[in-house]
Formats: sequence, C-alpha cells, structure tokens
Amino acid sequence: MPEMRRRGLLIILSSPSGAGKSSLAKRLMAWDATMRFSVSATTRAPRSGEVDGRDYYFKSREGFEEMVAAGEMLEHAEVFGNLYGTPRAPVEARLAEGHDVILDIDWQGGQQVRRSVLAQDVVSIFILPPTIADLEARLRMRAQDSDEVIAGRMAKSRDEISHWGEYDYVVVNRDLEISEAELRVILQAERARAVRQPGLTEFVRGLNREFENR
Amino acid sequence: MPEMRRRGLLIILSSPSGAGKSSLAKRLMAWDATMRFSVSATTRAPRSGEVDGRDYYFKSREGFEEMVAAGEMLEHAEVFGNLYGTPRAPVEARLAEGHDVILDIDWQGGQQVRRSVLAQDVVSIFILPPTIADLEARLRMRAQDSDEVIAGRMAKSRDEISHWGEYDYVVVNRDLEISEAELRVILQAERARAVRQPGLTEFVRGLNREFENR
Repeated sequence: MPEMRRRGLLIILSSPSGAGKSSLAKRLMAWDATMRFSVSATTRAPRSGEVDGRDYYFKSREGFEEMVAAGEMLEHAEVFGNLYGTPRAPVEARLAEGHDVILDIDWQGGQQVRRSVLAQDVVSIFILPPTIADLEARLRMRAQDSDEVIAGRMAKSRDEISHWGEYDYVVVNRDLEISEAELRVILQAERARAVRQPGLTEFVRGLNREFENR
Repeated sequence: MPEMRRRGLLIILSSPSGAGKSSLAKRLMAWDATMRFSVSATTRAPRSGEVDGRDYYFKSREGFEEMVAAGEMLEHAEVFGNLYGTPRAPVEARLAEGHDVILDIDWQGGQQVRRSVLAQDVVSIFILPPTIADLEARLRMRAQDSDEVIAGRMAKSRDEISHWGEYDYVVVNRDLEISEAELRVILQAERARAVRQPGLTEFVRGLNREFENR
C-alpha cells in the first residue's frame, strides 16, 4: 500500500568476503533509490579522498567510546586496533522517514543489532557462495594478495559461514541477476508484513467508520 | 534453491466474505500447480454432485468428534449445527512432500492452526477489501440474498476484519492482478527463509568439506 507512509526496514546483509554482497547491495540501491546505505563510524585515520559522513564518520577513540557507553552505537567491534561501528541516530532517522537502510556487517555485528533497540525493524539476509572454490577465485581476482593473506581471509570466511542459521533469509549467490531478484522479493514481502504497515490501523478504522455509517 | 527438496508452507488465507480470497487462492494454484488446497471435513450431508475427499471429507458426528479428541483436526468449529474442520494427516503429508497447502479458514481457525503442531509451517495472510461499500456490492452481486442475510454477513465481516493484526501479512485487495503479485512475492520470500530450507544444512556441510580439502 504505497500511499501509506511505512517505517523503513533495517536490512542486515552478511556474507563471507567475495560472495558478492557489495555488488548485490549496489544493485538493490539502483533498483530502489529510496534505500540508504548505513555509513559506519571509525577511529582509523581518513585516507586521501575519504569524506567524513559519506565514507565514514571519523571519530577519536574517546568520542567513539563515549558513543558506545551512551548506547549510541547499534554495533561495534575492534579490527586491527581500530574501532568500527554503526551510529544509531542516523539509522533511526532514515527508518522513521521510511527509508530502508542496508547494514553491511558481519555475524557479530548482526547479533548486536538484533539485540538492539531497533530489533523489530531488522530483516537479516545471509549470502552464501555456491562453492568455496568460487569464493577463493573471487578473492584472488580482486587483489594480488599473498597466500597468507588469502588463507587468513578464507579462515574468516569459514567462521562467517558457520553463522548462516542466525539469519532470517539465506540466498546462495550463483548468479547476480537471480540473487538480486530473490532479494527484491524478500524486501517486497517484508514490506507487506502487518507489523511493517502502521498505516493499516488507520485504514481499518476507516473501514469501521464505513460499517457504522451503513 | 529449487534443487533442494523443501518442506511446504501452510498458508492460512483469511478475509471477510466478498474480499476476493477464493479468486486469489485459485490464481495462486494456477500460478504454481504444485500448491494444494486443503479439503475440509464436515458432518453435514453431501449435496448432489459433491465427492468425498474432493469437496469435503464427509464424517459422522461421532467420527468427527473422535478425530478432534485424538488431535487429528488442526482446527474445527460448529456452524449452524454442523461441524467443519481441517484434518491434520493429509495436510502433514502434503507439507512433507514439499507441497504448499492453502487453508481457507476464518480467524478462529487461524488461531487454532497457529497453536497446532504445524505452527512452524504457517504463513498467515489476511485479505482486506478496499472499502466496505465494495465488500457489500460484491456480496449483493454474488447472490440475491435478503437484506437480513446481507446484514448478518456484514456483521460477520466486521468481526473477521477486527482480527487482521493477528496475521503475518496483510494485502488490501484493490485489484486482483496486483494482489496476486503481492501474494506470489510473499510466498517466494517465505520459501527463501532459512528455516524453510532444511537442505541448507547439507549444503553448508558441503562448503565445509571444501574448506577442509583446500
């Protein structure tokens, strides 16, 4: 019911690196321009060309930790000595405006968001590769990394994949076109859920007024 | 993932009479010929042309009540002195074979099925009419009923509509084409749910074997 303003969905997309998650996220945003990609906060230094608020929200460690203490991070983690996290306020604002928000986070972030104040808005989707050979080939294609780096990534992938069962939906990404269609179907169905359509309450009130005036 | 045998969905379709539920159920069966419509049991006498096991399972009152006592009815109710219900065994068999099964039942039946042993298979969808004027027009078109009969149906409709919030999904049936498309999307998404794809466990085991053999 497009004429009723609905609250946005908080879409958790997780997958091992190389399974096509970023390509699928971009395709979803191209399909529906009202969707928003969540911008992470980080304590690492900006790289050349990176813009605060677009690529990341750049924070001091103290500033970041204060946000965590104040419950202003939906999820966060330390990676190689830097903190990364998802600030709650911008996500909440977009959802209230009716934008679906995509979170590209791993299983640990997913668990934190599912336990957060925004749990009711969450739709979680795990992208699996068709084969591990395929996953490794995509990782090797992407960068000329050493075998050690690749081995580390593959170990992390295996750990990530072991959490597929915690997600609402699972898509095996054999083909980007088909997987995109599956994701679109999932999002369209989630938008039709009764709990996602607060406008229905008013709509049914209207039907009841009609009953009374018969 | 069509190559993995999945368990069927138990689709509860409820709506006030005249909202287009039967037309939509027929369209779904035409869209996917593997779907099955649940056949009800009843204690009322067969009418001319009705076939046992196709139109209804015709039962004696004793036979029906024994089935209820043995937990062999997913839901049942008494209407104008006759018992009606959904036998569990045929539904369970179809679900195990991978067929989605449509139950055309009211909110009271819906509540019973949601509390039944098949609760995990349930996808519940409520069809709302766009307006009450529209609902009444369809009821009047369908049969030359007296105003009293129409008034009784409308009162039942109002009661039925008051339960929309108990359903997973709500579709406002303004147009059969559009509503059918919405229902298809809902079913496709539900089939992609992790819990609906028992084959995924074996699939991920395969990925893990690949990790081990690298």
